[in-house]
Amino acid sequence: MRSITRSLGLASGAMALTALTALAGTGAADAAPAGTQVLYAPSALVVSVTAGQSSEGTVLRAVTLVCAPRPGGTHPSPAAACAELKANIGSSLDVLAAPRPDSACTREWNPVTVTAEGVWQGRRMSYTYTFGNPCGLRSSTGTLFGI
Amino acid sequence: MRSITRSLGLASGAMALTALTALAGTGAADAAPAGTQVLYAPSALVVSVTAGQSSEGTVLRAVTLVCAPRPGGTHPSPAAACAELKANIGSSLDVLAAPRPDSACTREWNPVTVTAEGVWQGRRMSYTYTFGNPCGLRSSTGTLFGI
Repeated sequence: MRSITRSLGLASGAMALTALTALAGTGAADAAPAGTQVLYAPSALVVSVTAGQSSEGTVLRAVTLVCAPRPGGTHPSPAAACAELKANIGSSLDVLAAPRPDSACTREWNPVTVTAEGVWQGRRMSYTYTFGNPCGLRSSTGTLFGI
Repeated sequence: MRSITRSLGLASGAMALTALTALAGTGAADAAPAGTQVLYAPSALVVSVTAGQSSEGTVLRAVTLVCAPRPGGTHPSPAAACAELKANIGSSLDVLAAPRPDSACTREWNPVTVTAEGVWQGRRMSYTYTFGNPCGLRSSTGTLFGI
């Protein structure tokens, strides 16, 4: 996670940092030692599953995912999903859509499209992937889209 | 809120509905009478404030907002924000950006852009509005973008 930890020497600095963490919609980080607070870039995402081969169809399921200061949201496995994002955001999330080695799916065309959109570490993010059918989604490696 | 309440007469129907509510990332609605469950279209949003006159700049703040089955997320006022969305989604959210009558802002150009994106009642949603300066945002009528 991209974050900055600072010791607070000045009262005005402490006030500014407190305001910033409050504005980010969270309390202070629990793990920070006394006299320090953690500044972090915001991360807030919506993960969805849509019927069809584009993200413009009917949204079947949608959850929120927050990764800072700690994993949360309505995603069923926020900690694992945040770890997957952190590990793969620099390359491509396509690896999360790859089928598990033991998976076996029929090959009918009944596409579902998954999306992850919003903000990741202060940058806007939009990811879309279309599976050939729901079995492909259920058999994918990652937990990010397992909603 | 668009929702469907059903009495469950068949065990197979009960199983299907339970699976649906579980997939929506929530438990059963607390307020539903015994023997009924509430089906609802998913609503999950990211609300953000970005420096500059487009949503592609540095994201200063970002929160999540969930409106079904009950308001929640990291938004500081989820109940009020959901009520504003429900009241205005059919027309335009621009009314939430209108200045309060008693507001007074200087006129320097220092734009900030707010966004609300994700899913609203099963449909994809993306809203963007640019204020001339941060005072315009602070003086706006709505609470949706007061993050």
